[in-house]
Amino acid sequence: MSTTESAAEQAASEFDRDTSLRRVGPQVFEAQISDGWSTIGAVHGGYLKAIAGRALAAALPHPDPFTVTAHYLAATQPGPAVIRTSVARVGKTHSTGSASLFQAGPDGTEVERLRVLGTYGDLSALSGEVRTTAVPPELPPYERCVGMEHAPEGFAQVTLRHRMAARLDPAVVGWALGEPSGRGETRGWFAFADGRDADPIALLLVGDALPPTAFDLGMPGWSPTVELTTHVRARPAPGPLRVAVTTRNLAGGYLEEDAEIWDGADRLVAQSRQLALAPRG
Amino acid sequence: MSTTESAAEQAASEFDRDTSLRRVGPQVFEAQISDGWSTIGAVHGGYLKAIAGRALAAALPHPDPFTVTAHYLAATQPGPAVIRTSVARVGKTHSTGSASLFQAGPDGTEVERLRVLGTYGDLSALSGEVRTTAVPPELPPYERCVGMEHAPEGFAQVTLRHRMAARLDPAVVGWALGEPSGRGETRGWFAFADGRDADPIALLLVGDALPPTAFDLGMPGWSPTVELTTHVRARPAPGPLRVAVTTRNLAGGYLEEDAEIWDGADRLVAQSRQLALAPRG
Repeated sequence: MSTTESAAEQAASEFDRDTSLRRVGPQVFEAQISDGWSTIGAVHGGYLKAIAGRALAAALPHPDPFTVTAHYLAATQPGPAVIRTSVARVGKTHSTGSASLFQAGPDGTEVERLRVLGTYGDLSALSGEVRTTAVPPELPPYERCVGMEHAPEGFAQVTLRHRMAARLDPAVVGWALGEPSGRGETRGWFAFADGRDADPIALLLVGDALPPTAFDLGMPGWSPTVELTTHVRARPAPGPLRVAVTTRNLAGGYLEEDAEIWDGADRLVAQSRQLALAPRG
Repeated sequence: MSTTESAAEQAASEFDRDTSLRRVGPQVFEAQISDGWSTIGAVHGGYLKAIAGRALAAALPHPDPFTVTAHYLAATQPGPAVIRTSVARVGKTHSTGSASLFQAGPDGTEVERLRVLGTYGDLSALSGEVRTTAVPPELPPYERCVGMEHAPEGFAQVTLRHRMAARLDPAVVGWALGEPSGRGETRGWFAFADGRDADPIALLLVGDALPPTAFDLGMPGWSPTVELTTHVRARPAPGPLRVAVTTRNLAGGYLEEDAEIWDGADRLVAQSRQLALAPRG
């Protein structure tokens, strides 16, 4: 990604276009929330997090998200938004700050939709040994996994299926046929539909890119995210990523979702966890 | 904990005394950081998070932390601190806000030590089915686990061992004898030394209360926490808690630590994850 050609390709990608920012003050940015990244009834939370994550990258001296947490406050609408950032600390290795995404409410006053807290660093500066007990998910090849074009009826309004070319392991799509496994698992491949490779900012979105694990628990319907935290651990190699998501605890009307994201070099490039409301289904 | 006697007992506990706040403005609180909660060379991050978490509980209309993330910016010192909070949203079910803990730096100007973002709710209002695949860790009884009084030399400065009566499964203390398992696991019981039961605010601390899993990877030394996120899922039953911590990925000089916290009623009362710097050992 260091050649001018690659930079130009990326600038032309749907993800870069739809997360682009205009700086309008020292720590203030304007964004245009696209209607191309919607799930059932809402703008995708991972997409919004990537926008806020990009604003933090612009506000802080370090380029890469290391750990970023987003709290979802109110439904964001396609259209204009303002992101205000606040720097907590700038250090040699890390810098930390907050970002809040606002939109005009019905009466014209600003309403905060999303608040994000993140620590950034430089992934290129990392080295050292790897001692991982985590193993990549076993998945059939990309071509033999199930694309969203095979999604059940009712997914027509999920516009982000035109942006993300996620493909699920056929072993975990029983829910689409009315036969969820009950284990609360999903796994598959992630790629952008236009072929753009995922970079660290894009990883903020990928952990939330597969269908909810609640589907596999036999609970169709929307699971609104309360909070989503992503640890980015390495710059991903080009090509599709493998994503494995599990839910270990659905209780009291909430569930957690843990995602691991692996690149083609078999590196665990990101881990994410979210707290979501269980579907009311 | 609803009787006056219990409330009085709690008020007298070391944890309550050392996390108590004085409101000095609409959303501003003063705290006194105790020197009784120190690990090797630093005030314990979970203790600081509990203080900030208590400030958020006071600033928001909902009493219980549901998901709280702390980013550690600079070493906090025992002594006075100011916590400034900022409310992002107040809703019917949840409310969300930030808290920043400041101390005077060498030149007297305020330095931000800790920034926290949290969503609060009311755990008493939760109900509904439990579908959990998580299982509690198998531990010997509390009396047969290993207390910190048996810790190796060099732990004398860990003052928090007088506040927390953590007891480790003898199967995971090989590191103390120079024989780490290399699996990156630790598990044990957590209790406050003075017998105070853990409540939701205290759970913010418990996920960070056992010795670092890096010890079990054969890497003694301090693993400074960059970020710690806790999901509180239920109000714990009285009595000691079981805590199981694993590290799946040490790479690039960082590691994650995942903790599950179980109460005596076999409920998964909290999940936490942190990103930490690996010891330089």
